[in-house]
Amino acid sequence: MLKVPEHQVAGHIASDGKLGPLVDDQGRFFKPLQGDSRGEHEAKFYESFTSNKMVPDHIHRYFPVYHGTQLVEASDGSGKLLHLVLDDVVSGYSNPSVMDVKIGSRTWYPDVSEGYFKKCIKKDRETTTVSLGFRVSGFKIFDHQESSFWRAEKKLVLGYNADGARLALRKFVSSNSPADSNSTPPNCAFASEVYGGPNGILVQLLELKEWFETQTLYHFNSCSILMTYENESILMKGGDDDVQAARAQVKLVDFAHVLDGSGVIDHNFLGGLCSFIKFIKDILQSVDKRDETETSPLENGN
Amino acid sequence: MLKVPEHQVAGHIASDGKLGPLVDDQGRFFKPLQGDSRGEHEAKFYESFTSNKMVPDHIHRYFPVYHGTQLVEASDGSGKLLHLVLDDVVSGYSNPSVMDVKIGSRTWYPDVSEGYFKKCIKKDRETTTVSLGFRVSGFKIFDHQESSFWRAEKKLVLGYNADGARLALRKFVSSNSPADSNSTPPNCAFASEVYGGPNGILVQLLELKEWFETQTLYHFNSCSILMTYENESILMKGGDDDVQAARAQVKLVDFAHVLDGSGVIDHNFLGGLCSFIKFIKDILQSVDKRDETETSPLENGN
Repeated sequence: MLKVPEHQVAGHIASDGKLGPLVDDQGRFFKPLQGDSRGEHEAKFYESFTSNKMVPDHIHRYFPVYHGTQLVEASDGSGKLLHLVLDDVVSGYSNPSVMDVKIGSRTWYPDVSEGYFKKCIKKDRETTTVSLGFRVSGFKIFDHQESSFWRAEKKLVLGYNADGARLALRKFVSSNSPADSNSTPPNCAFASEVYGGPNGILVQLLELKEWFETQTLYHFNSCSILMTYENESILMKGGDDDVQAARAQVKLVDFAHVLDGSGVIDHNFLGGLCSFIKFIKDILQSVDKRDETETSPLENGN
Repeated sequence: MLKVPEHQVAGHIASDGKLGPLVDDQGRFFKPLQGDSRGEHEAKFYESFTSNKMVPDHIHRYFPVYHGTQLVEASDGSGKLLHLVLDDVVSGYSNPSVMDVKIGSRTWYPDVSEGYFKKCIKKDRETTTVSLGFRVSGFKIFDHQESSFWRAEKKLVLGYNADGARLALRKFVSSNSPADSNSTPPNCAFASEVYGGPNGILVQLLELKEWFETQTLYHFNSCSILMTYENESILMKGGDDDVQAARAQVKLVDFAHVLDGSGVIDHNFLGGLCSFIKFIKDILQSVDKRDETETSPLENGN
């Protein structure tokens, strides 16, 4: 039985009879192949990437596992349609907080049609894509006070400036009620466990960055970083094995516009990734500073 | 006595009564302040940068030293005009080979006028700015066979694709006649001394890269890296002190479009710089491989 994914935060969403991805209860994610060759292009990328021996193993794990294509009943009721079959990257999480961040200072690329170029660059300039080299596309957080998910409004997310993006990245790792953040600043209670630490987001982003500094295989145009962490487990933790409690995870998704690198690094993705990394580092630094300030009076015996 | 600089390879050139930079015989470079506030903007940048204690000393040395502004006779005969007074970065070289590389995958930036945006993005798409994250703006090489300077034609330089840019970067460090490179491939005779080595271009670029990964002070829009080396000294070298013979030098120039970083890294410059670094590394690697192949028969006793 296929159903609409509960934790999708961006892209086409299969609800109200529209075409979108589906999931099964075995941890598989079914993404419909779009008619305009983009789907086919994405399938080709997965075929190439999955078998590409030039991609190191530690990099393969940042991509959803690909299981080929399959004809399944489309979510819009139009009958059987070819779908990409992927591992559902949030399957196995109880209450995942998820954020989709589109990386790069442009979503268009050389040799696109004028129509596509104009559509992309308009949105790139209206969002933080040009100014920050990335844009938040959507996110949801498990709200502990309400014991339910809070979802950022798409319209607001796409209207972020630099401060808005920064606030969203703080909110994403906070335990105080996300709906109240206009009056209460996000407390970043989970920042050091989710962004920091030996298995945190930052370490994973830095590993990706290292690869992007030399890889000339692919250009990941209009591709997103999907960050996930297990929110509930952080609150319920205890004992010695806290380290992986947050299960912070970075995955790259959306490859409908990937091109051959042709011997040139993906400077567009790399530049944006470095900018994004700086935002994450800044949050970790601000939390470290706060912790120092809070503990120093005790250490001084006051 | 001010005169037209001999070694300028890009930008407005003061010849035939046009407005352009001038040099004196004391190693000073005089750059006229352009009327449309760009010159003033560049002067402001130099004032800010020169006194900015947040910029480390080892980074300051990648920028021309600034000596304020001065009224001097303009090159176009229009009378006295305010000029930036800078150190002439090629003064002291006998036969400098010089290349100007504009860094970044765009030369426009947020909040420019539509006219300026359109002008820039057209040129960015026509050149390698979008595809490579940098474009060669001009270069000259000391031609040993002719004992004179060879200058790349501006029109050809601006028409480079990825292969053209790669060839130019190889040609720039070759000893065979640059004019013949269509028939004779560049030999990259100086690559390991100019691009490689402890004082070479690559080491300097990597130092700049490290700073750009964290600096959020300035965004260097439409700024160039100027590479210079002393060509003659490489041929005339001998003895033990060869290491600095090439006097390979990296300088950043052209700051008429620098903006405040406002807490965000210059991902546009950084991405382009990383791409440029990869090109330089590739050339060094190809030369290393060739050298291995050439020496291995001897080592094997053949």
